[in-house]
Amino acid sequence: MKAIVKTGENKGFSFMDVERPRPKPNEVLFEVEAAAICGTDIHYYHWNQSAKDFASKFNVKFPFIVGHECSGTVVETGSNVTSVKAGDRISLETHIPCGLCFQCQNGNAHNCMRMDIYGTSCNGCFAEFALAPESVVFKLSSNVSFEEGALFEPAGVAMHSVERAQLEPGDTALVLGCGAIGLLSIMTLLTCGAARVIAVDVDDYRLELAKKLGAVTVNSAKEDLASVVKQYTSRRGGVDVILEMTGNTKVYENLFDYLRLEGRIVTVGHPGGTVPVNITQNINLKGANIKGIFGRRIWETWWKLSSLVDAGRIKILDVVTHRFKFEQVNEAFEQVNKGAGKILFIK
Amino acid sequence: MKAIVKTGENKGFSFMDVERPRPKPNEVLFEVEAAAICGTDIHYYHWNQSAKDFASKFNVKFPFIVGHECSGTVVETGSNVTSVKAGDRISLETHIPCGLCFQCQNGNAHNCMRMDIYGTSCNGCFAEFALAPESVVFKLSSNVSFEEGALFEPAGVAMHSVERAQLEPGDTALVLGCGAIGLLSIMTLLTCGAARVIAVDVDDYRLELAKKLGAVTVNSAKEDLASVVKQYTSRRGGVDVILEMTGNTKVYENLFDYLRLEGRIVTVGHPGGTVPVNITQNINLKGANIKGIFGRRIWETWWKLSSLVDAGRIKILDVVTHRFKFEQVNEAFEQVNKGAGKILFIK
Amino acid sequence: MKAIVKTGENKGFSFMDVERPRPKPNEVLFEVEAAAICGTDIHYYHWNQSAKDFASKFNVKFPFIVGHECSGTVVETGSNVTSVKAGDRISLETHIPCGLCFQCQNGNAHNCMRMDIYGTSCNGCFAEFALAPESVVFKLSSNVSFEEGALFEPAGVAMHSVERAQLEPGDTALVLGCGAIGLLSIMTLLTCGAARVIAVDVDDYRLELAKKLGAVTVNSAKEDLASVVKQYTSRRGGVDVILEMTGNTKVYENLFDYLRLEGRIVTVGHPGGTVPVNITQNINLKGANIKGIFGRRIWETWWKLSSLVDAGRIKILDVVTHRFKFEQVNEAFEQVNKGAGKILFIK
Amino acid sequence: MKAIVKTGENKGFSFMDVERPRPKPNEVLFEVEAAAICGTDIHYYHWNQSAKDFASKFNVKFPFIVGHECSGTVVETGSNVTSVKAGDRISLETHIPCGLCFQCQNGNAHNCMRMDIYGTSCNGCFAEFALAPESVVFKLSSNVSFEEGALFEPAGVAMHSVERAQLEPGDTALVLGCGAIGLLSIMTLLTCGAARVIAVDVDDYRLELAKKLGAVTVNSAKEDLASVVKQYTSRRGGVDVILEMTGNTKVYENLFDYLRLEGRIVTVGHPGGTVPVNITQNINLKGANIKGIFGRRIWETWWKLSSLVDAGRIKILDVVTHRFKFEQVNEAFEQVNKGAGKILFIK
Repeated sequence: MKAIVKTGENKGFSFMDVERPRPKPNEVLFEVEAAAICGTDIHYYHWNQSAKDFASKFNVKFPFIVGHECSGTVVETGSNVTSVKAGDRISLETHIPCGLCFQCQNGNAHNCMRMDIYGTSCNGCFAEFALAPESVVFKLSSNVSFEEGALFEPAGVAMHSVERAQLEPGDTALVLGCGAIGLLSIMTLLTCGAARVIAVDVDDYRLELAKKLGAVTVNSAKEDLASVVKQYTSRRGGVDVILEMTGNTKVYENLFDYLRLEGRIVTVGHPGGTVPVNITQNINLKGANIKGIFGRRIWETWWKLSSLVDAGRIKILDVVTHRFKFEQVNEAFEQVNKGAGKILFIK
Repeated sequence: MKAIVKTGENKGFSFMDVERPRPKPNEVLFEVEAAAICGTDIHYYHWNQSAKDFASKFNVKFPFIVGHECSGTVVETGSNVTSVKAGDRISLETHIPCGLCFQCQNGNAHNCMRMDIYGTSCNGCFAEFALAPESVVFKLSSNVSFEEGALFEPAGVAMHSVERAQLEPGDTALVLGCGAIGLLSIMTLLTCGAARVIAVDVDDYRLELAKKLGAVTVNSAKEDLASVVKQYTSRRGGVDVILEMTGNTKVYENLFDYLRLEGRIVTVGHPGGTVPVNITQNINLKGANIKGIFGRRIWETWWKLSSLVDAGRIKILDVVTHRFKFEQVNEAFEQVNKGAGKILFIK
Repeated sequence: MKAIVKTGENKGFSFMDVERPRPKPNEVLFEVEAAAICGTDIHYYHWNQSAKDFASKFNVKFPFIVGHECSGTVVETGSNVTSVKAGDRISLETHIPCGLCFQCQNGNAHNCMRMDIYGTSCNGCFAEFALAPESVVFKLSSNVSFEEGALFEPAGVAMHSVERAQLEPGDTALVLGCGAIGLLSIMTLLTCGAARVIAVDVDDYRLELAKKLGAVTVNSAKEDLASVVKQYTSRRGGVDVILEMTGNTKVYENLFDYLRLEGRIVTVGHPGGTVPVNITQNINLKGANIKGIFGRRIWETWWKLSSLVDAGRIKILDVVTHRFKFEQVNEAFEQVNKGAGKILFIK
Repeated sequence: MKAIVKTGENKGFSFMDVERPRPKPNEVLFEVEAAAICGTDIHYYHWNQSAKDFASKFNVKFPFIVGHECSGTVVETGSNVTSVKAGDRISLETHIPCGLCFQCQNGNAHNCMRMDIYGTSCNGCFAEFALAPESVVFKLSSNVSFEEGALFEPAGVAMHSVERAQLEPGDTALVLGCGAIGLLSIMTLLTCGAARVIAVDVDDYRLELAKKLGAVTVNSAKEDLASVVKQYTSRRGGVDVILEMTGNTKVYENLFDYLRLEGRIVTVGHPGGTVPVNITQNINLKGANIKGIFGRRIWETWWKLSSLVDAGRIKILDVVTHRFKFEQVNEAFEQVNKGAGKILFIK
């Protein structure tokens, strides 16, 4: 079968023939119907420092098939598999939990103490067929399309951000960064009761997408974010919730100025190195609450998202701007630099 | 000035001249701009058993000006008032808290241990001018109309129901009863992240209103609610949330059958007498959670609602079906029996 | 091996020889070190209506080995078992979840939609050796004794009650019924921040045990509970939390009188039939919150309890009043009628 | 009357005669029965940079009577005061809320947008008699002594830290810094369900006090904290909760190493300047949750604490090591440098 493979520490991927795999007792073999490109894949494409750090933390071995956001149709199941059968339509969680550690046993399987990462610690899904442990398989309901299913993993990051932010009806949220996760977060916030979302980027193409989703947009390279925040939150003294999705260390310089007293920040973007934080002024006296997230709650986040998509309450495909075949792998990854929302591979 | 007055235990109200009041040191005098008819007002109109029970509990003395859902413009303030001034646009909370008891000091001022009720323990707002203690005055933001402000009190019951139900994104909710509070609850649920709302009534006029708001509607006199619930919640085994807004004891016979394991019920309607509950089957083994509400959280519920209305995220005026002048009091209360959503009095 | 077996619908149990079982791929075989008698076992002993209802709901087939509260040492593991190995010390969860349904995937495995019950739907642990699915095995830490481990299941009901009651520091709690679960709840409440526990029973023997654990005790057959509640909660207008552990329908007559506005009731006892509830007075106007529980949160409740026992912060063995060998089965079950806290079987 | 006064930007305080004040309409005059020295008072004594920053933020004007932790007996009340009367025993909240802003109206009066600080923005309580706005007066129950009442403000910081940490039964907590707030936090954690508290300081005198309260103690200048944390939390991978009470920037270097995945940190100590934080490693991938606190929840924190003290469940006087008269002001503040837990002034 054909697959997109990372063969070593060089730039780029190889589109090549590999042997079609067979499921072990706890595994599911599925035909990939749709898949999506994530920031991690882009790091792997370029094999930059982020890629190296992540690969080292999660034990990468070359060569490996990349890709982890996908949907597919089950073809064959291992002997111990009971939850799905051939013909079932599925999506995949990327975080492979052990199921036995303290985190797994206390509602935090998404941050398992012995976690593997799909498409990193093992082969991924940018291929005609792929394997997955039964423990990360999520069955799609019949109303959900394969393209939607392929976006559950990134849309789940958006949903988890909103859960973690403890969004209250009527909140005003600030979303920093309008990449795919930022755009999905705007949708999720507005679907789940936010009164307003202020979305920030320096790229007008992305801001246009954000605006279409209902956000108030600010190009922070040209406009004064502080005054926009003030305009919409004067009685509250700042936004209730900030979702930081740029990973830009510079953003942290003024981050707390936009937050109201007792507000909440969820950090999703990964800055390199450290950022200076004024604990006294920005955390203590402000009564601020900063939370990190990694992955999606298994399976709470999935069910919430899936139910909203199934009911047509959230249109996650609105973030998709480009579609390619796997053989167009280079074209697809070059599109990233030219400007894109979410990019899909389709069968 | 003119006012709608309850003079005694007879049916009906008197539209009559009364002296225009002057504010005491802690009071605010305002010109009434819009007001709305509540179920309590209807009970008072007919002076039925519900009216007698409520009036007795909250210490009614005849004659009194009725009405408690309203908005207005501040005309004069007592000497101790600091939060508003003449010209400010306001709405009113009906529950008048003491501010000093355990409930008031622990975030439950809406259920104060020494609570007075506006328009019951003291004169209300169906009049050209009205007084209110400063402690129940809520300033309207400039985006909010007087008609919207007059609906904050009932829309706040809907919002409080949704808060109390601990609605999660993607939940399916069952709303029993499509009166004004039921309709406002449908809106609130769909604005705050519900995937679907199943709305039930026996009145097709009301169900039509519910349908326009986005609910799946069921006329329980003609259709099988159980099968509709099953259709939308087969994987969950029932709805996540039930809002009981009929006060019909018969509804309790099957209430728990529609609820999934570990689901939540909020009771808002007031049945007369008692209902039989099977603690073992319906509460314990089901892991059910039943919660009552009375009033609105002061001021959390108000801020949530106000922010959503201000941002145009919820159109609470969609429940208004009729508008009258105060002098049309009899016409207005007779309309109730002919079929109506929410009825407004406007200046 | 020897086992305590229910052979049919007659009263009593048989202490008899049965074949020592062998583990299937997902099972664990363990030597039983300690086991405890639960209310369900007593119903099974007498084969009363409660036994019949429960057995029918959970698919009992005769003959079966009874018992579900226990600890033991792993002897042999099935081929798929990875979480424990021979020699490990374990306790068992009674609720056997499917792991795949909506409840299991949303943090409510304790109320699985396809749940089996250990010692009911399958053989239990009142035997020299017993089998259990790997999914219900909880490893004991080295500080925890086998006797303590045998009490984790009932002590977990107490902990779950306290979790579900959303106990706040400084709360006053009312515990109705001082059987084993009631006594364990008193301990748990006082360990987890309750200011005071008022414990009620009609049996002075049990009340004496409750008093030793730190509760204020009331014999409701002789004393006026209302005045004791008033004495300790005059500023709050009632207790914050009620744990109902009698299953006595009569208790529900005054239940809400003891509860403060916006208070919480957790129902654990199983009354036969229905109880009348005044929704308007007791739920709505009171702002009350009634919650049922069934089982223990898997594994959140277990970890909380285990950590407190491990650290010596809660002495769950204080509820044990009698210890027997399995061969003393009749003596043990007759002791129940004579008065007992918790009764253990030990190897 | 006699009072301890800060007359200007010099070191030290003046013990001097001042006019006995009279209450304005919303004020309460009380005789001070007991008062306690806080870190802020020590900063004011030395008039260091912290004092200057705080005084500037909260609008200090010389001269002013210092002190804010106290209890007393009401002597006279202003004409608008209704909650207390002469003879009532009281304690005081330091944060004076406006009651009208978004924070005050949403359960966060402790972090009011227009907050005044007692003993900073206005005269304090280190005097024979003192004034306070009615809005910060908390009535003491008869079981609570004046000395206990004088400690409600700092003990409330400990309680608020524990609330904010969302302590779960069975958690292991790390308390960094064993000053008065650290010691009170140890008590509070152990009273409210923590399995274990690991307490850290570099001062053996303080560590001895911590040990008596039940903490596992670590002198971080001599012992390896990491290995102690590992010993008690090996299955969890770190502590569940960290309370940072040193304000030492150096502590932040390793802070996250002690925290388990998805753990919570509450920052209470005020470091000068900024600390570097690795968002990717320490917040995002860790799923950490960092929260600041300022003050005490009004009045939730007070009621929780007061109820536990009233019931004898927490012995907050155990942190008191020295007692002085107001005229011994210099002796008292010099004792701080020699080593002390909490220092009281008594009438």
